Amino acid sequence: MEGCIFCRIAKGEMPCNKIYEDDDVIAFLDINPINEGHTLVVPKKHFDKFSETDDQELEILIKAVKKIANAIKVAMNADGYNIGVNNERVAGQLVYHVHFHIIPRFDGDALENWKGKNVSSNELKQTCEEIKKVISFSY
Amino acid sequence: MEGCIFCRIAKGEMPCNKIYEDDDVIAFLDINPINEGHTLVVPKKHFDKFSETDDQELEILIKAVKKIANAIKVAMNADGYNIGVNNERVAGQLVYHVHFHIIPRFDGDALENWKGKNVSSNELKQTCEEIKKVISFSY
Repeated sequence: MEGCIFCRIAKGEMPCNKIYEDDDVIAFLDINPINEGHTLVVPKKHFDKFSETDDQELEILIKAVKKIANAIKVAMNADGYNIGVNNERVAGQLVYHVHFHIIPRFDGDALENWKGKNVSSNELKQTCEEIKKVISFSY
Repeated sequence: MEGCIFCRIAKGEMPCNKIYEDDDVIAFLDINPINEGHTLVVPKKHFDKFSETDDQELEILIKAVKKIANAIKVAMNADGYNIGVNNERVAGQLVYHVHFHIIPRFDGDALENWKGKNVSSNELKQTCEEIKKVISFSY
């Protein structure tokens, strides 16, 4: 898409620290890594957001994400990794071209996962009912 | 798998706040939600970790995650969402049965995404080379 920075990277019109490329996917280092080896996996086809990405494209992406993440873990001698997709600005999406983050994790790194809250079983039940109403429309 | 809490939930042997189920997948509310509507999408087949999950299973999962996340966003009147997979304890994986987190996000919620670091282009290049060595073995 015109003006999209990830489309330009995918076409080779802009430089990146590329770690993998095939006909469908390109993967390169995040220029502001959360941990060393932080990588973005990006489809060459443009979709603004995860929520709008074709099923077929998602199938290709998730398989690439697994293979690349496992290779990064070995290369970085990491102890694990987080996979993340941020959908919409409020969730931390900065570039509106769908991408998966792979963030290697190391024992003792300073990153803290978000903490869950204690909520009552009644609250959970009510939330569950609200979602099920919409799910039954969606399927 | 014997003793796996998510296998028992998938078999109906343990209760959950189920929002969706089909032949392959079950989705239910996290009992310690990071935000209201926080949901886990779980394959009925047991795989310890994302890194070990069959490609075919990942294809099924990622399509379910998209549909369910989009429905949750509507139901919760959310402004976006995060998709996450924690691979290994260091990354926050608590249950060793692969699962995707869907975390609805709301304007003004108190959650902060991890911050990226400023690193030199030389450091990035070196990391890139280290990963590429392993990637070339993996493919």
